[in-house]
Amino acid sequence: MTNETTQSTTPTGTTRTVAAYAAPRPKAPLAKTTVTTRAAGEHDIVIDIKYSGICHSDIHQVGEDWGSGTFPMVPGHEIAGVVAEVGPGVTRWQVGDRVGVGCFVDSCRECDNCRAGLQQYCQGEGGMVFTYNDTGRDGRPTYGGYAAELVVDEAYALRIPDALPLDAAAPLLCAGITLYSPLAHWGAGPGKKVAIVGLGGLGHMGVQLAHAMGAEVTVLSQSLRKREDGLRLGADHYRATSDPTTFEELAGSFDLIVNTVSADLDLTAYIGLLRTDGTMVQVGVPEKPVSLHPFPLAIGRRSLAGSAIGGLPETQEMLDFCAEHGITARIELIRAEQINEAYRRVLDGDVRFRFVIDASTI
Amino acid sequence: MTNETTQSTTPTGTTRTVAAYAAPRPKAPLAKTTVTTRAAGEHDIVIDIKYSGICHSDIHQVGEDWGSGTFPMVPGHEIAGVVAEVGPGVTRWQVGDRVGVGCFVDSCRECDNCRAGLQQYCQGEGGMVFTYNDTGRDGRPTYGGYAAELVVDEAYALRIPDALPLDAAAPLLCAGITLYSPLAHWGAGPGKKVAIVGLGGLGHMGVQLAHAMGAEVTVLSQSLRKREDGLRLGADHYRATSDPTTFEELAGSFDLIVNTVSADLDLTAYIGLLRTDGTMVQVGVPEKPVSLHPFPLAIGRRSLAGSAIGGLPETQEMLDFCAEHGITARIELIRAEQINEAYRRVLDGDVRFRFVIDASTI
Repeated sequence: MTNETTQSTTPTGTTRTVAAYAAPRPKAPLAKTTVTTRAAGEHDIVIDIKYSGICHSDIHQVGEDWGSGTFPMVPGHEIAGVVAEVGPGVTRWQVGDRVGVGCFVDSCRECDNCRAGLQQYCQGEGGMVFTYNDTGRDGRPTYGGYAAELVVDEAYALRIPDALPLDAAAPLLCAGITLYSPLAHWGAGPGKKVAIVGLGGLGHMGVQLAHAMGAEVTVLSQSLRKREDGLRLGADHYRATSDPTTFEELAGSFDLIVNTVSADLDLTAYIGLLRTDGTMVQVGVPEKPVSLHPFPLAIGRRSLAGSAIGGLPETQEMLDFCAEHGITARIELIRAEQINEAYRRVLDGDVRFRFVIDASTI
Repeated sequence: MTNETTQSTTPTGTTRTVAAYAAPRPKAPLAKTTVTTRAAGEHDIVIDIKYSGICHSDIHQVGEDWGSGTFPMVPGHEIAGVVAEVGPGVTRWQVGDRVGVGCFVDSCRECDNCRAGLQQYCQGEGGMVFTYNDTGRDGRPTYGGYAAELVVDEAYALRIPDALPLDAAAPLLCAGITLYSPLAHWGAGPGKKVAIVGLGGLGHMGVQLAHAMGAEVTVLSQSLRKREDGLRLGADHYRATSDPTTFEELAGSFDLIVNTVSADLDLTAYIGLLRTDGTMVQVGVPEKPVSLHPFPLAIGRRSLAGSAIGGLPETQEMLDFCAEHGITARIELIRAEQINEAYRRVLDGDVRFRFVIDASTI
């Protein structure tokens, strides 16, 4: 905790004033401010945030690209820190525990999906509660990880194993699980050929994870510019999608393609790269409808699927898997005052591979 | 065999002259004629065709809707008959056996898919050999089931169980397997909710098969016009897609949707009807690219897939399943000279549910 955090009791309950970086209004630069959150309740923990990753979706939400947002907005859903306080009813955590929080901080806990540990697909009213730009069960706006601390229900925090450094572990909470979940669900492993489309923040996690799972990994990237990076991360092959021979030579060769690119792709061409019964999974969600010819799906019983982050048990499994295999994000650590510059660089594709904010500078 | 069939030896080998109904040129009405096929070779059987179903794709191919065709064209890939002759090397069949032939009469037999019994996805050069409008291994055009007889490699014929009448079994060879394969592959069975989109020649097979597999079956049809038919065929529910409340009330409810409709549908809306991990399978192949928003795929890890007919082992399994459960197509038997009228009625949607040609009238 920074010394800027204060706790006080108001007519609406006990609150905390937390130092944060927020966008005061849509598309505005982020600036230092304070926000008011609830104090730790019975089952809450207070996390002293150490590091917070910058996800491309933070930029989309500040920009209201996906619909109107709630402002001031404190983005950030790749949060790594240490437990600073525990509510009286907390059983899972102790002060000092290394914990992470990802894209959601609550869900209905009662629907079939919540009971099955698929909180990311919560079917309760309004679905899961997003870590920021949403409204919590307490009726307050949720504020994310670009902050000194986070108050969260103990059930929605994950344990970050000691083997993982907190800074490079932060992006695992979104980028890591976004790739781990489809790779695990669709069976990436020995004997399987997996393609990762795009070598950005998501893709560079996918290459490492698929490689550690034992799959033969090919990166499909627009150019060969990041080829050395890709091979170093564990890719067996690296092919340029701007080269038409790529699509001829790799036709029918992949069991699984995970597409991390939000931009419009010729999906019909990518589906043609799948083997019989192969699946192409979209994890980067384009803003516009996509178009594809159904014929290549039928010839080979192929599928186009979607996947969104992962549930709590799978996110913990992913963190443990990363610890076991020494997998972390490749990061560039920045100070809080560099957030706006980092946003510009993300939009320019000038990041290898994830910016992480040192929260001690907030 | 009709008495119009003759066998003769020419410079290119022994041939047969077979009575048939053919389209002499693209989009032309079909008329009675004869075509020349190979005589029965070492591993061939000659099938005395008894019945031949009319598939919508016959009309597409005569009309060159999917690309240029070979004329004269004898359509027909829903063929039921009796073995009339066997080549000297034939081991599986005896004269008098009840047999069927579906959409393909050969394949490479060497690729992974052929070895796995997935001949419909043959990866050999040119893929499987279609029953008509293709070129056989003998270099001759292939001619389909609107004919008095068919010469076919013994390995590409299926046994029609005695419990199935040959006329109502003929459509199983295409319409039946087209629905059976995705229903079986994606696990339609007890506890699963399956929707069949469209109650035509394909859909009415899907309802019966999914019901017999133990699934809870809903027909999604434009109107309630065929509701009584649908319920009689085994549907538990019948909903009109022209009614917007259908999409609200059934949101998130199906494990599997099999879409038999080739016309443009709002796929995004249908994907929204799937449960978490649900799959929508296209078996009617639209001629144009389809468009969908990727977001509903991601929220619930849902898939859009394709499926094409089935391989030889699965087609046999389907025939045996139909015999066991008393499933056949609902047919209207016609004489060969009614083919052109039947085509018009198919295009008008005026068929319950499949026309079958009595081949004795050819």
